Amino acid sequence: MDINILLFNNFETLDAFGPAEILGKIDGFKLDYYSLHGGEVKSSQNISVVTKKISDAKKNGVLVVPGGMGTRTLVNDLDFINTLREALEEAKYCLSICTGSALLAKTGILDGKRATSNKIAYDWAKSNSLEVEWIRKARWVVDGKFYTSSGVSAGMDMTLGFISDLFSEDFARDVARRIEYIWNSDKDVDPFA
Amino acid sequence: MDINILLFNNFETLDAFGPAEILGKIDGFKLDYYSLHGGEVKSSQNISVVTKKISDAKKNGVLVVPGGMGTRTLVNDLDFINTLREALEEAKYCLSICTGSALLAKTGILDGKRATSNKIAYDWAKSNSLEVEWIRKARWVVDGKFYTSSGVSAGMDMTLGFISDLFSEDFARDVARRIEYIWNSDKDVDPFA
Repeated sequence: MDINILLFNNFETLDAFGPAEILGKIDGFKLDYYSLHGGEVKSSQNISVVTKKISDAKKNGVLVVPGGMGTRTLVNDLDFINTLREALEEAKYCLSICTGSALLAKTGILDGKRATSNKIAYDWAKSNSLEVEWIRKARWVVDGKFYTSSGVSAGMDMTLGFISDLFSEDFARDVARRIEYIWNSDKDVDPFA
Repeated sequence: MDINILLFNNFETLDAFGPAEILGKIDGFKLDYYSLHGGEVKSSQNISVVTKKISDAKKNGVLVVPGGMGTRTLVNDLDFINTLREALEEAKYCLSICTGSALLAKTGILDGKRATSNKIAYDWAKSNSLEVEWIRKARWVVDGKFYTSSGVSAGMDMTLGFISDLFSEDFARDVARRIEYIWNSDKDVDPFA
């Protein structure tokens, strides 16, 4: 399975790399890092990551979309939003973390679907499409191939939930154990809502 | 405060970037990423990070040392171990995550001090210096300026503990809330030991 992680300037570090840590533990999952144009992108925590061009990513994989301050300008970047829409359509599964769901919402692909987002920027995320059925109190939400999580750390709980859905809960628990992660495994338990 | 994060090939992603996420939330903390020779280094989860040369890092900061498969060869790299020893001596605080403490132990700087490490590779980590007072059951251990954590995710709990010690528990709780992280705030609670 190809795990395609889409980065952009001012992405939130843990949004992207918490899920990467977990997905990287699964045999046969191949992780690669992409951006709109390829090249170096920098997280809000000052990490410079070398990326490939998203249009070169393999289809039918898992697309991971972090959030972060960078999303505030990206929702108005038509080139980015159109390219994202295409990548979302071509993906087998889509995982967004925090305000990553604002980007998904902006493409229109979540219209009529259930989704959640970060709790501090919730109203802003929501404003990107009122056609989405936004769920305020949720650690993460699943609707078809779309997994959307609450803020930052919730992305790790969701990714383990995704692994659990794909394989089994026992397998997900074993991955959590290997990284000594205390998994909040109930997607409806959201202490921050 | 300068936060100097020391990377190497095959570092474990979350070991480094979990703490980076948290430390990056503190006003006045400046995060930079280093390696022995500078240039690109790649994590075990395939992230290529652009780094500076560790000998160029500012003194009297916080040195963060992740673990990961890369540590297995680095303990035998005298150039790396000597450079690390110097960086550790020059740092105001040192935070190691997972098998990062094996690297610290190898420099001899933890001799006579209390420390912990990852639970799966515990015996190997320990073997790098038997003069360290290794604590098996601990989410993290503090001895003077040295903070050492258990495996991977424990690094985030420890980093919030460090923030709590440096500022206050309320402040640390607020940082955890902003990243929607469910903090295991008791360093003696270790569900994986």
